[in-house]
Amino acid sequence: MFDKFKEECGLMALWNVPEAANLAYLGLYAQQHRGQEGAGVVSLDRESGKFCVHRGLGLVNEVFANYDFSQLVGRAAIGHVRYTTAGGNQLTNVQPFFSEVSTGNVAIAHNGNLVNAEALKKNLIAEGSIFHTTSDTEVILHLIAQGKNKTARRELIFNAIKEIKGAYSLVILFDDSLFLIRDPNGFRPLSIAKLGEGYVAASETCAFDLIGADFLRDVEVGEVVEIDRDGKMTSHFPFGKTKQSPCIFEYVYFARPDSQVYGKNVYGRRKAMGRKLAQEHPVEADVVIAVPDSGVPAAMGYAEESKIPFELGLIRNHYIGRTFIEPQQAIRDFGVKIKLNSNRDCLEGKKVIVVDDSIVRGTTSRKLVKMLRDAGAKEVHLRISAPPTTDPCYYGIDTPEKSQLIASHNDIEQIRQYLDVDSLGYLSQAGLYESVEAEEGTFCDACFSGNYPIKPA
Amino acid sequence: MFDKFKEECGLMALWNVPEAANLAYLGLYAQQHRGQEGAGVVSLDRESGKFCVHRGLGLVNEVFANYDFSQLVGRAAIGHVRYTTAGGNQLTNVQPFFSEVSTGNVAIAHNGNLVNAEALKKNLIAEGSIFHTTSDTEVILHLIAQGKNKTARRELIFNAIKEIKGAYSLVILFDDSLFLIRDPNGFRPLSIAKLGEGYVAASETCAFDLIGADFLRDVEVGEVVEIDRDGKMTSHFPFGKTKQSPCIFEYVYFARPDSQVYGKNVYGRRKAMGRKLAQEHPVEADVVIAVPDSGVPAAMGYAEESKIPFELGLIRNHYIGRTFIEPQQAIRDFGVKIKLNSNRDCLEGKKVIVVDDSIVRGTTSRKLVKMLRDAGAKEVHLRISAPPTTDPCYYGIDTPEKSQLIASHNDIEQIRQYLDVDSLGYLSQAGLYESVEAEEGTFCDACFSGNYPIKPA
Amino acid sequence: MFDKFKEECGLMALWNVPEAANLAYLGLYAQQHRGQEGAGVVSLDRESGKFCVHRGLGLVNEVFANYDFSQLVGRAAIGHVRYTTAGGNQLTNVQPFFSEVSTGNVAIAHNGNLVNAEALKKNLIAEGSIFHTTSDTEVILHLIAQGKNKTARRELIFNAIKEIKGAYSLVILFDDSLFLIRDPNGFRPLSIAKLGEGYVAASETCAFDLIGADFLRDVEVGEVVEIDRDGKMTSHFPFGKTKQSPCIFEYVYFARPDSQVYGKNVYGRRKAMGRKLAQEHPVEADVVIAVPDSGVPAAMGYAEESKIPFELGLIRNHYIGRTFIEPQQAIRDFGVKIKLNSNRDCLEGKKVIVVDDSIVRGTTSRKLVKMLRDAGAKEVHLRISAPPTTDPCYYGIDTPEKSQLIASHNDIEQIRQYLDVDSLGYLSQAGLYESVEAEEGTFCDACFSGNYPIKPA
Amino acid sequence: MFDKFKEECGLMALWNVPEAANLAYLGLYAQQHRGQEGAGVVSLDRESGKFCVHRGLGLVNEVFANYDFSQLVGRAAIGHVRYTTAGGNQLTNVQPFFSEVSTGNVAIAHNGNLVNAEALKKNLIAEGSIFHTTSDTEVILHLIAQGKNKTARRELIFNAIKEIKGAYSLVILFDDSLFLIRDPNGFRPLSIAKLGEGYVAASETCAFDLIGADFLRDVEVGEVVEIDRDGKMTSHFPFGKTKQSPCIFEYVYFARPDSQVYGKNVYGRRKAMGRKLAQEHPVEADVVIAVPDSGVPAAMGYAEESKIPFELGLIRNHYIGRTFIEPQQAIRDFGVKIKLNSNRDCLEGKKVIVVDDSIVRGTTSRKLVKMLRDAGAKEVHLRISAPPTTDPCYYGIDTPEKSQLIASHNDIEQIRQYLDVDSLGYLSQAGLYESVEAEEGTFCDACFSGNYPIKPA
Repeated sequence: MFDKFKEECGLMALWNVPEAANLAYLGLYAQQHRGQEGAGVVSLDRESGKFCVHRGLGLVNEVFANYDFSQLVGRAAIGHVRYTTAGGNQLTNVQPFFSEVSTGNVAIAHNGNLVNAEALKKNLIAEGSIFHTTSDTEVILHLIAQGKNKTARRELIFNAIKEIKGAYSLVILFDDSLFLIRDPNGFRPLSIAKLGEGYVAASETCAFDLIGADFLRDVEVGEVVEIDRDGKMTSHFPFGKTKQSPCIFEYVYFARPDSQVYGKNVYGRRKAMGRKLAQEHPVEADVVIAVPDSGVPAAMGYAEESKIPFELGLIRNHYIGRTFIEPQQAIRDFGVKIKLNSNRDCLEGKKVIVVDDSIVRGTTSRKLVKMLRDAGAKEVHLRISAPPTTDPCYYGIDTPEKSQLIASHNDIEQIRQYLDVDSLGYLSQAGLYESVEAEEGTFCDACFSGNYPIKPA
Repeated sequence: MFDKFKEECGLMALWNVPEAANLAYLGLYAQQHRGQEGAGVVSLDRESGKFCVHRGLGLVNEVFANYDFSQLVGRAAIGHVRYTTAGGNQLTNVQPFFSEVSTGNVAIAHNGNLVNAEALKKNLIAEGSIFHTTSDTEVILHLIAQGKNKTARRELIFNAIKEIKGAYSLVILFDDSLFLIRDPNGFRPLSIAKLGEGYVAASETCAFDLIGADFLRDVEVGEVVEIDRDGKMTSHFPFGKTKQSPCIFEYVYFARPDSQVYGKNVYGRRKAMGRKLAQEHPVEADVVIAVPDSGVPAAMGYAEESKIPFELGLIRNHYIGRTFIEPQQAIRDFGVKIKLNSNRDCLEGKKVIVVDDSIVRGTTSRKLVKMLRDAGAKEVHLRISAPPTTDPCYYGIDTPEKSQLIASHNDIEQIRQYLDVDSLGYLSQAGLYESVEAEEGTFCDACFSGNYPIKPA
Repeated sequence: MFDKFKEECGLMALWNVPEAANLAYLGLYAQQHRGQEGAGVVSLDRESGKFCVHRGLGLVNEVFANYDFSQLVGRAAIGHVRYTTAGGNQLTNVQPFFSEVSTGNVAIAHNGNLVNAEALKKNLIAEGSIFHTTSDTEVILHLIAQGKNKTARRELIFNAIKEIKGAYSLVILFDDSLFLIRDPNGFRPLSIAKLGEGYVAASETCAFDLIGADFLRDVEVGEVVEIDRDGKMTSHFPFGKTKQSPCIFEYVYFARPDSQVYGKNVYGRRKAMGRKLAQEHPVEADVVIAVPDSGVPAAMGYAEESKIPFELGLIRNHYIGRTFIEPQQAIRDFGVKIKLNSNRDCLEGKKVIVVDDSIVRGTTSRKLVKMLRDAGAKEVHLRISAPPTTDPCYYGIDTPEKSQLIASHNDIEQIRQYLDVDSLGYLSQAGLYESVEAEEGTFCDACFSGNYPIKPA
Repeated sequence: MFDKFKEECGLMALWNVPEAANLAYLGLYAQQHRGQEGAGVVSLDRESGKFCVHRGLGLVNEVFANYDFSQLVGRAAIGHVRYTTAGGNQLTNVQPFFSEVSTGNVAIAHNGNLVNAEALKKNLIAEGSIFHTTSDTEVILHLIAQGKNKTARRELIFNAIKEIKGAYSLVILFDDSLFLIRDPNGFRPLSIAKLGEGYVAASETCAFDLIGADFLRDVEVGEVVEIDRDGKMTSHFPFGKTKQSPCIFEYVYFARPDSQVYGKNVYGRRKAMGRKLAQEHPVEADVVIAVPDSGVPAAMGYAEESKIPFELGLIRNHYIGRTFIEPQQAIRDFGVKIKLNSNRDCLEGKKVIVVDDSIVRGTTSRKLVKMLRDAGAKEVHLRISAPPTTDPCYYGIDTPEKSQLIASHNDIEQIRQYLDVDSLGYLSQAGLYESVEAEEGTFCDACFSGNYPIKPA
């Protein structure tokens, strides 16, 4: 509904933890913002070697409504939430995938996107493989399945990931071990925690908080973490030392503010972006407001730095359903109003600074500006806590085509005119890196810069 | 899920407006926070005299999912959202009620609670009436039905409301007129707006914003507003001048912050409560946080007044479903964690002031405090932006019995100990009245004072 | 789907029987053919005086799917299955109705149709009554409710049924007694059985067989049977001696063949109709077939009498759903084929006698004849085991308007031509009475004769 | 619910027929008795080369309720109904299966059971294949997928079916051709019809009747029928001449009486079995009745031969749902009574011959006998229109284990005593072959004889 980039997936994995499947479900729930169209859990009962699967379309809560977790036996599990992109929203595409392969049973869940999946798939089909999903993740499963009987699991995985190119954080469950993997660029996050005698992994640390696990460390860029039958954790770097480029947009928008991503608190980084934005684009005004909820921390940072009071100028409706029946005589700005209402008393006759984290197509922003003016705002100054998003992502984020990104073919002044704001300021690339306390070029910033660490297909 | 008082109903009414039913549905959606367990719309096609009804259990969006509004014909409609209390959550109790009576067809929707419903019902049954619901609202319908054929609708209504006692904001739709009513105490709100050539009424003005109607005025305390077939609005005061006592808790918690209630912006009043609270109960601290979302405006007011920075110390999960499957080895403070997570970076090693609007049983607050301490808060100072809630409500709010209200049988120090906070401060009664810019005693404050404007049954 | 008259309701009642509600449900299931669009059970726990209700739209099995019968407490219950006619298929119209009236709680279920319901309803509304359903049965409830507090239940009922005119078999449950009633004409059946120490009543005796109750006797025409708190059964005849006219069509089509109706086995009567039909309308042929399933007993009787072999020339599909998606290039006789297929080997090159129980509009019969000819039948002779249906029913059977009844405006030869059969023979009125072993005029045969025992409204 | 063997599948295929998918659905509906737990249709739009799939759990009617057939584009389609046996009732096992393989897209549906599926599957997995279902049919798909790019489709199929052993009637849809296959034993039926310019195939000819297709011939035993892009039909016999053994039980129970199976009318064969049974096991009696519906034709044959009248002594309830809530004080013979009721008037004081087609475990038969005795039958003589079922089937029929078949470890007298009948007679093996007009040994009769044409795994 909002005009935003969309994270495509969230992962969970547990090893040697009681009620693993139930905790996987809760960990997925905490990461629901990373994918709302499908969810699943595969558990492993190590004594019997039995894997159990439950997957479905919809929110975690819908998929597991009234579910009896005693059906997902075992002290090991992996889980996945999914936002559908290519391939349509079909049940067969919901992860984790599970299959019997030459070397035993295996379950896999994937956050990211492979850039060479189509080519690999074509080869595999030519050699007699049958694909049952339209997901690039199934390619990885087939690559693992090509291995021979006696090969160590670790080797199967090394061989498979040497074939694939692109973004992948993976959790892979065998009947005697669990693997946690980040690709050599480390595009997507993956963190490890301790829970009792066992281990937990998740895309975001907010999952650990809910289930009471203690954060240990991130899976490192290019690392393959193996947890074996005895619970011993070993670390492998099959690609050796690589040039990392984790996604900077996790800080800007995707991650929950209470998560620690790449070792740092997201909320803190967003406030810093807001403060920096106030330094780069100051303006005289009466009030700072946010586009809730993602714009709130940056707006608070802007207000703090600028000494202009922060107010709740836009109120979010908490009962948003999936579809609304609009009257034929359309209500002005209906799509925005159904989610947000202006709080007239904070706006009427005021010079308003409104802070948001990004502008994708610009359509929603334009309606919001109109709504603020209708509520009596005398001036509207839009501030964006990131650089202009000029290029699409090929590493696991759902973005429109380049031509639809307003900043891909308009300069700031043109965007300002289109949005009908009195002024418009984006945080600079340098400002963004400063806000996340990193040197320029140490993240993937392709959506702002067009510099793609791996060439898309 | 939260330990709060609950508003029981929200109303909508439209007269001489195209697509009235569709707008009623949207107005109910905007007021969803006033009742989440049932919703309905009755429309009137004045040309044919036909009334159409659609009602169901669940959220507005669920009740009207894929609904074809062309089935709800006409330029007049009333609607209702409901939170179930007595009588169980049955479809038959979902309003608006519609019936054929001696003087024509009539539909009715009610926000409030009658204190003499049982006695009236007993009499009506003794005289041969049959009740089909367990709702007190049906009594009003029967009282109207007792009237004779030739009686003017206005008289039917005057006669009916002179029998009933308690809290009632009513919208009543006849085939030739619409009535908007507030009881002589004016317990519950009801406002009027203009839309094109017609009129709209709603419990809260946020409904007007969504459908683009222009706020006109409140229905006055004890007023019967009649809108006749020609769209002419006339005003009646069948009880003459009365001593008003509208519900002050609408300002504290029930209403949406972007609504104007009793003529004033709710958000502004809540910030004022926070500022006053800071004056009455100052404490040295590093950070002010809110219990989201209802505590946010007061927390911002407290921060503003105290000059202590406001931070997002508790993060709300936006995907809360209705039930969760908890593991058997229960997670500590599960019920709170599923909705809120502590944001450790804002809390660790800090003296924290946490602002909430009310404490009912105290159970949730206690868990929240524990969660803050677990996140490393050095001190926790709880501030409540209203006086202690010591007494139940009998005027349309769902409250626990007196014995379950923690403040009914514990003094402040006892509550402080139970909640395990370093200090606890409630806004005073005087402070609350000052915050809403009114003289003491001009509102119903029975839940704080035990002073009931009308004796409960 | 079939072109038939439709029975509108089936009743169950139990008094002083363990698990009464569960048995009521099974008794309704056995009588499912009497109404497929709604079902309900009201139970009474006599110790607490509590009535419990469960009703829903659909088949008995759907309404009670996964239902927990421990919610329907008590050793007394009444139940109802319903075929919707007037008033639309709404949940509020599903019986039994239950209400609190001046003299206590009462539940009622009704098989039949009142001819003066509209007039009575108008009066009741003028006096202040509120109707919640569009069912004529609610009128009876209101008439009972008019009675005063001290009146004996028996008097309440006598007073009510003296006001109503038309067809009514009723089961009425008070907190201390159960009433079983047939109107003074006895239009619709109602039978009594013994089960353990208690009593059971049902529209058809097949319900007794399923639950293991022993048939005792029919409720007599014009009888009010009262079973009091001590389980004592008394009999009342408030109308004195009346001229009876039970529905003869129960024998022809409505009742299950294994039921005893008005004291006689339905299957036996239907075979007798077939034998008589063979005497009245003999024809040289190779084979006798039936339109399954209702035509089977008469076809067997015809075959027996005529010595022509009976074969399964039409095979019924047992998995008929409610709707079918027909291709755009319509299949010939689709509507019939979906239910019945011709069995070519019994038909090809044969002279075929096909026996059915009735022709209503004639549309289905015509398609069936075509199907038989397509399967190679050399001659098709249609025999109907009842007289031509010329007039609609006003006593609880769903029939089309007179103008739509093919026999209302066509003579036999015209019908024969329309149906394209080689010969057509209907059982005579005298033959029908002989088959049911009764004197002419002792049943209601209005649908064949137009002689209405009570003038319709 | 009944104690019967169960057919596992039904097939449909259409080539060059308008609205192919809609007709496939209707053809499956006509064959619903061959599988009630899942259904699916895959269509092919030859112009675009696009395959479309719709599958689901439940009856055909449920799976396609409100389905929009315009989504299943094209003039070619295959369909499948399924009765679940091994592997559980999961959506992924519902056929037709569809996949992209090295040589293009392919869809497949299978009636039968492979005896070497597990061994083949193991090899395929060892070579890197991934299985997504627990169905033996997926093995065939993988064998086809092993073929190389340039191989003709016909060769792919020959290579695949030379690997598999067991029972298989197959319909296989490529983007340019349709294949219809029966295994070298011809265990399961498959017939071809003409519809307009195109072809239709179905497991049973009753499917042709519904959609108006004209029966052409059976697919012969061991034949591979290929219909190419130009609609030309060619015939191949990759196994040369083989010893056929089609399933004789299709005549006894599985097929619909109105179908032509292996060139003969099923109803006629069943009547012949009844006549032969009367010759082999005559007994003096008053009445012949059937266990409906499958026992009816044989009972009619028995009556015809014995000159004892055939009556409807057991009446079937037509509204059987899937589950029933039984009272705790169980009703005697509940499980039988819910489906069948005795018709006392035909039974009381009579010597009764009851005809059924088979006895599997004997539990239901025993209850039926008791029900007949309770209804007053003086003597009960049970006649079975087939030999004793002593051995399980491994060729696509769901049968209990050998130990559960009552005739596997009891002689006739022991069974007679267990069932408590006055006499018991089974049709002899010779009598059965005579009834189907075939020489002994020309069918698979393993369930009667233990002579398995192919050794089970």
